[in-house]
Amino acid sequence: MHEKIAVILAAGNGKRMMSKKPKVLCEVLYKPMLSWVISACEKAGVEKICVVAGYGHEQVEDSLGGGYRIVLQTERLGTGHALKMAGNFLKENAGSDLLVLCGDAPFIDEKTIGEAHALHQQQGNSVTVVTAELENPFGYGRVLREGDGISGIVEQKEATKEQQKIREINSGVYWFKTDDLIPALEQIKNDNAKGEYYLTDSIAILLSSGKRAGAYLAPNADACLGANDRKTLLELNRKAAERVIEKHLENGVGFVSADGVVIGPDVKIGAGTEIDPNVILKGKTTIGENCFIGQGCVLEDTTVGNDVKLYAVQSEGAVIRDGVRIGPFAHLRPNTEIRAEAKLGNFVEIKNSVIGEKTAVAHLTYVGDSDVGCGVNFGCGVVTVNYDGSEKHRTVIGDHAFIGCNTNLVAPVKVGDTAYTGAGSTITKDIPDGALAVERTDTKIVEGYAYRKLKKKK
Amino acid sequence: MHEKIAVILAAGNGKRMMSKKPKVLCEVLYKPMLSWVISACEKAGVEKICVVAGYGHEQVEDSLGGGYRIVLQTERLGTGHALKMAGNFLKENAGSDLLVLCGDAPFIDEKTIGEAHALHQQQGNSVTVVTAELENPFGYGRVLREGDGISGIVEQKEATKEQQKIREINSGVYWFKTDDLIPALEQIKNDNAKGEYYLTDSIAILLSSGKRAGAYLAPNADACLGANDRKTLLELNRKAAERVIEKHLENGVGFVSADGVVIGPDVKIGAGTEIDPNVILKGKTTIGENCFIGQGCVLEDTTVGNDVKLYAVQSEGAVIRDGVRIGPFAHLRPNTEIRAEAKLGNFVEIKNSVIGEKTAVAHLTYVGDSDVGCGVNFGCGVVTVNYDGSEKHRTVIGDHAFIGCNTNLVAPVKVGDTAYTGAGSTITKDIPDGALAVERTDTKIVEGYAYRKLKKKK
Amino acid sequence: MHEKIAVILAAGNGKRMMSKKPKVLCEVLYKPMLSWVISACEKAGVEKICVVAGYGHEQVEDSLGGGYRIVLQTERLGTGHALKMAGNFLKENAGSDLLVLCGDAPFIDEKTIGEAHALHQQQGNSVTVVTAELENPFGYGRVLREGDGISGIVEQKEATKEQQKIREINSGVYWFKTDDLIPALEQIKNDNAKGEYYLTDSIAILLSSGKRAGAYLAPNADACLGANDRKTLLELNRKAAERVIEKHLENGVGFVSADGVVIGPDVKIGAGTEIDPNVILKGKTTIGENCFIGQGCVLEDTTVGNDVKLYAVQSEGAVIRDGVRIGPFAHLRPNTEIRAEAKLGNFVEIKNSVIGEKTAVAHLTYVGDSDVGCGVNFGCGVVTVNYDGSEKHRTVIGDHAFIGCNTNLVAPVKVGDTAYTGAGSTITKDIPDGALAVERTDTKIVEGYAYRKLKKKK
Repeated sequence: MHEKIAVILAAGNGKRMMSKKPKVLCEVLYKPMLSWVISACEKAGVEKICVVAGYGHEQVEDSLGGGYRIVLQTERLGTGHALKMAGNFLKENAGSDLLVLCGDAPFIDEKTIGEAHALHQQQGNSVTVVTAELENPFGYGRVLREGDGISGIVEQKEATKEQQKIREINSGVYWFKTDDLIPALEQIKNDNAKGEYYLTDSIAILLSSGKRAGAYLAPNADACLGANDRKTLLELNRKAAERVIEKHLENGVGFVSADGVVIGPDVKIGAGTEIDPNVILKGKTTIGENCFIGQGCVLEDTTVGNDVKLYAVQSEGAVIRDGVRIGPFAHLRPNTEIRAEAKLGNFVEIKNSVIGEKTAVAHLTYVGDSDVGCGVNFGCGVVTVNYDGSEKHRTVIGDHAFIGCNTNLVAPVKVGDTAYTGAGSTITKDIPDGALAVERTDTKIVEGYAYRKLKKKK
Repeated sequence: MHEKIAVILAAGNGKRMMSKKPKVLCEVLYKPMLSWVISACEKAGVEKICVVAGYGHEQVEDSLGGGYRIVLQTERLGTGHALKMAGNFLKENAGSDLLVLCGDAPFIDEKTIGEAHALHQQQGNSVTVVTAELENPFGYGRVLREGDGISGIVEQKEATKEQQKIREINSGVYWFKTDDLIPALEQIKNDNAKGEYYLTDSIAILLSSGKRAGAYLAPNADACLGANDRKTLLELNRKAAERVIEKHLENGVGFVSADGVVIGPDVKIGAGTEIDPNVILKGKTTIGENCFIGQGCVLEDTTVGNDVKLYAVQSEGAVIRDGVRIGPFAHLRPNTEIRAEAKLGNFVEIKNSVIGEKTAVAHLTYVGDSDVGCGVNFGCGVVTVNYDGSEKHRTVIGDHAFIGCNTNLVAPVKVGDTAYTGAGSTITKDIPDGALAVERTDTKIVEGYAYRKLKKKK
Repeated sequence: MHEKIAVILAAGNGKRMMSKKPKVLCEVLYKPMLSWVISACEKAGVEKICVVAGYGHEQVEDSLGGGYRIVLQTERLGTGHALKMAGNFLKENAGSDLLVLCGDAPFIDEKTIGEAHALHQQQGNSVTVVTAELENPFGYGRVLREGDGISGIVEQKEATKEQQKIREINSGVYWFKTDDLIPALEQIKNDNAKGEYYLTDSIAILLSSGKRAGAYLAPNADACLGANDRKTLLELNRKAAERVIEKHLENGVGFVSADGVVIGPDVKIGAGTEIDPNVILKGKTTIGENCFIGQGCVLEDTTVGNDVKLYAVQSEGAVIRDGVRIGPFAHLRPNTEIRAEAKLGNFVEIKNSVIGEKTAVAHLTYVGDSDVGCGVNFGCGVVTVNYDGSEKHRTVIGDHAFIGCNTNLVAPVKVGDTAYTGAGSTITKDIPDGALAVERTDTKIVEGYAYRKLKKKK
């Protein structure tokens, strides 16, 4: 089989989005549209991807994080011109099948790409246009069918009355034989009103040189849906959200109301898990079975085990093991692992730490840069003092330790197994196993203080 | 009048729900479907209820918490078989009128049950089928009317073309004369495709022995709505939520937007109360008049007085009296009473405590296992140290006391009326009325510390 | 040009709202309906406004906060009677053009008022009725057109069959020549079924004395929409919310979902800002460009700069400068300024304070009545002890100071530039620049404490 490569057109500035971001980085369900397109390509087995960036190309590059070829289109002279910018990429991949897509049409999917490619190969086409059937095709290029192939694409303006009735339109996604496209690209001219180079012209060029052109009608008309402004982008978000929730319902995930629920396309959720309204699950979040995710939760790139209960938890990049209960109002920051059956209560923050099995951090506590054993009990108001103004240090707490309320653990410090700290102590030295450490002075009682104070006030 | 008893069919596993819970425990507005059915029975004056459980019967038993007869259907051989499992219950209640319902059709209501029973008695029926009229009756058993009674129910498969046009269907709810049903049950056979015993067969049996069968057409077609999978369960939730909000609007409750608002069917709210979007009110929560319930509030089994303002409060089982103001971001746990005109601020947790009238707990404070007087002022960061690692103890705070910031009150301990504690003190002994208690040592000033530190760093 | 004045009818009690508030104070997008009407008048250049209050007139007066003439209508005897109550106001403004509107029809807009006035002047009318065209005009007064003016308004009850077909209705908004209305008002009689004085009667009176009456058909039929009960009020909120979001979408504001988003009509948001579901923006809140406002944020009268990121922040009246990042779970209270690029973390409260540029207040901290310099680092659990039980005092913290965890700063107190405090210290005296202040005693280690404790427990 030929190698599959793709060029994604991603140079637009999206002026009507009124954003500093290039249009392809505008997000649907918190995932940039360009990433949707790349995911679809990769799932469909496309091996090499070249992104034609223009406006904000540095942002595009940052967003992709390496692994993709990026070429620059400094002037925006049409889709044909954009593809010419990828000329070297095409030449380096002689013999391949080339997929061309728009970076701002996020709903293209693996199945459409794969089936279009199958048809492309089976019919021996030089170009196979992915098409869609629209209720209202006005404005789109119409597909002219002939035999089992096509005789061309006619734009709205040039279409006859008869052609205007055609409802099958060009979605802007194509499979090409790379080797046939390369010379055809050279022949595309810009002798038109806008002075642009149109990729669609390559179809006529290929046909006139005796090649075959075909069309694959996508069963899902959304493949061609794009967003030009904030309103249509919101519309894409709505459609995507509905579809994602539909998928999770089928997988046995329960929702009492889907209001305000936004779940990213790459999130996985196990059966029997129940999700409240107003829950946001982003990025590569994975949730196990039979969990409860309460309203107000925002989880990003977070891994949640089975039988976990979360209430108004915000988490970025944490790992939460089976049977854990957290919240309400808790914050987990990156590089955090909450081990099985631990309990975190209200107003608790954990950062860059491991919390051991069955450990309880019930209230108003900050654990940062710490390794906490199992069965530890944190009183209320405990602080791991991890920063001394110049450096961060680690705190180590042994199994079954008992940390008194409002204890400051000044790192680097080690609390032994089953060790205790007295409430209100600031601990600056290691505590041996089983010992109690307490920093406290005598309490002075001033009798009648309040009465004198009140008298004075008057 | 005959005693009214009910048998609820609740043995299904709800495989398509993909839950570990039996289907009847799947929830609509956070209330198990089975509990909806039981509530309707009880409101309609049904005196004894027998639940036929099967899959997950221990969970069903736990959920009901006693007070109901539970019988086991270990094999699932049809509705007739289910009722046979309740044979002893029927025999013990000779002379009664028997209501049979499905535990997974939560929208049956008191009025439908009552009016069907009235017809049942008035017509002297042996069986009265509760029926509904559906736009699309496909798949349901059709009701064959004859005179003022019925001549039978015909299932979809056996129905003639003419019968298929009938839109009145069997909702699965029936009133029986218990004494007539008992012998009829014995005659139901399983000589059918599935080898099951169908309760509907009892109708033909009763008619053939010269008894009367009637039908009550429920004005509310939803009586027969059930949920088989997560999608239809979400649909039931939507319908129920709309109806509940409609009811509260009629009662003078204000909503700026009902997005993300989920209010349980048993929640009561007074007129003039205004509710933000994204508020969840569960269980037996009661809210008074002219309150404001801000977004993010989740109240369960909580009692709220009049003129209360809540902002992002999560509460389980607390009692909040008139004129209280709480939040944003506060957590009330069970067995807590917040007395009139008290003020709780941000990041405050109260557990198993009484907070007196006009007391202020403004910020970052945990009050647990405490009895707090009226007019008390809590500084920021106060902790009641209620757990010593082995036992919980109570803290008692007198009227008009002033608890300094970051005070630890190590229970058991008593702070007298108008007593003061110094900021940062750990209090382990009782403080007399009007006294100041302060635990503090001298402050050491190290001049130039920072400059040396910075120099060293370089 | 004639001076423009307005009388707003605002005496209704709104019984069906079941609120203690007078009807005109019921809110749409958290703004009282009366304020919507006043805003429209003021934007349209109306110079003097007189509000006819009745039920709850003290509340109306409080809500308006001065600046408007308020007259009392103690008895409610119709719209004509209401206007008579404003008789002195009319007489004092001889020669003016008078706009009459209903205080409970919030969607009247500047453009409608202005264009109706233009027509009023151009046609030299004594009265110009603002009209609307409704699909279903039943119940409304129909407008009888004649030539380029009108010959009257006929109420539903008095309308002939032919007149009932008229779909142009009286919206209840009028422009009058004040000098013509004054004598006409005197002639309105209450010889009708209800014994009320109807303002519409003035039209016939003016026409019969040879004056001109005209009608301006509002392009927006909503101008006449009012709310009589909680259900229609929710409907107005829905319509208003949709329109507001539409406007912000056009301005380049992004929404991933509009569920639970409520944005007041006077809120301003810059292009490129992205808003999560479940965000409430009230009052005079202004947000700059390219911000992110995360779910759970509730901002009231808050000013936010550019490139700010907020996560579950509740703020009343704060000013947040460019590049600030706050949350999740933070609370800003009035008279607070967070300067550029400061960072506030979780469970942080700031009140009546300035937080300097690039200062970090990361966790579980309360800063009240404080002036904090730039580049300051707050440890976790810091408390400004601003209240001594009788008075509030200020805390001053110099640039680049480092406040150790769980420090109590007992105000009035001054922490010098680059000064340090030790963790767990209670600071009651000023700290010189560059010095370290620490209040701490020796730590006692009790070896084997836990083992003895556990033994004892058994």
